[in-house]
Amino acid sequence: MASSHEHTVKAFDQDIGQLRALISQMGGLAEQAIEDAMLALQRGDTALANEVRQKDKQIDAIEAELEKLVVRVIALRAPMADDLREIIAALKIAAVIERIGDYAKNIAKRVPMIHGEAGEERIDVVSILPAMGQLAADMVHDVLDAYSARDAQAAVRICARDNALDDFYDSIFRTLVTYMVENSRTISQVAHLLFVAKNLERIGDHATNVAEMVYFAATGDYMAERETGEAQAN
Amino acid sequence: MASSHEHTVKAFDQDIGQLRALISQMGGLAEQAIEDAMLALQRGDTALANEVRQKDKQIDAIEAELEKLVVRVIALRAPMADDLREIIAALKIAAVIERIGDYAKNIAKRVPMIHGEAGEERIDVVSILPAMGQLAADMVHDVLDAYSARDAQAAVRICARDNALDDFYDSIFRTLVTYMVENSRTISQVAHLLFVAKNLERIGDHATNVAEMVYFAATGDYMAERETGEAQAN
Repeated sequence: MASSHEHTVKAFDQDIGQLRALISQMGGLAEQAIEDAMLALQRGDTALANEVRQKDKQIDAIEAELEKLVVRVIALRAPMADDLREIIAALKIAAVIERIGDYAKNIAKRVPMIHGEAGEERIDVVSILPAMGQLAADMVHDVLDAYSARDAQAAVRICARDNALDDFYDSIFRTLVTYMVENSRTISQVAHLLFVAKNLERIGDHATNVAEMVYFAATGDYMAERETGEAQAN
Repeated sequence: MASSHEHTVKAFDQDIGQLRALISQMGGLAEQAIEDAMLALQRGDTALANEVRQKDKQIDAIEAELEKLVVRVIALRAPMADDLREIIAALKIAAVIERIGDYAKNIAKRVPMIHGEAGEERIDVVSILPAMGQLAADMVHDVLDAYSARDAQAAVRICARDNALDDFYDSIFRTLVTYMVENSRTISQVAHLLFVAKNLERIGDHATNVAEMVYFAATGDYMAERETGEAQAN
């Protein structure tokens, strides 16, 4: 009897391991997507932007695979309490990463609209965005590390960084609006940049959501209340 | 034995009924939030806008309740196959409605930034948005009806309407950019309107996602492939 129980436990651990591996794979792709989308934006590289859009399908496919695995694990192992919570957490984290991938794809989609036709005026203000992109990509990277290590303290530090990202966004919003006022011919392109900045800010919010789930999974407590990170200027 | 089985089935049906009731309650709140946020925007009514922001907590609370119920139902009833898929679908639909609520809250948050201090220039261009808001709120309303009725054909019709919403968005995007070019003093306010329009467009996308889940739950098939509705101009 004990050995059969052990057998079940081991199989379940393997299932959980597989869920975590899928999440880590999704997370790696999402982080890469943010970096590539920002590189494409900086360089006006529409081929790279298209690649980001195509690769988003991989993230979606892994999420679908994870969902099927969750259903299978629940049906086969009928997990209780903590185990079930871990599985539901994996499902939720996967959904958040899928959204992060969508934001990166959305940035990529704007590259041709921001850079316009050859010969059109180039907008130098693009240069203020990559640092914000790096901050967002780093948050995604680090929250996945925190998830793998079940590190509650690392999760807390990630939430603190979201405030910096929000401030960054507010400052970029003001800069872009000022730029629009002074360069009315480029308003349409700069409007797309506003959305890019907003997408990066949302990526930070989602990394924060994952951090809160990691904290809960690791400690069983909710992280101390904080104003859920949305930038002032939005 | 048969009577014990029937008893379990009945209890499970009650659980499912409770899940559906929670979703319907969330959906009603989300629909109301969109309508109130748009009314607040139209009238510059910051008190109503604050109310929308406050009430969003109710939607979040119902989602948390639903999640707990899902965990309890799975742990108690160990549902298989179709039943499990229905429960996972409820979890996913609730998450989408929670996001729709967030978009409405986000619109409400922009009301003071769009209307500015008393005496500031009023921007008449606000008037082009309510019709788009109504279209989005109607989609949310109708997709919840389709969910209650498990009506696959209604779900298909909702997806078709998302294309109209996307066209609406593209047209509003161009109008707002033109307005910015001609009224550079109001660029900051109009930039917030761009985000409002984008939020409405995203609400339509999410209603469409729910419609796809309803279709799948009702038919067991995926809806015929369509370019997942995002507006051209984004």
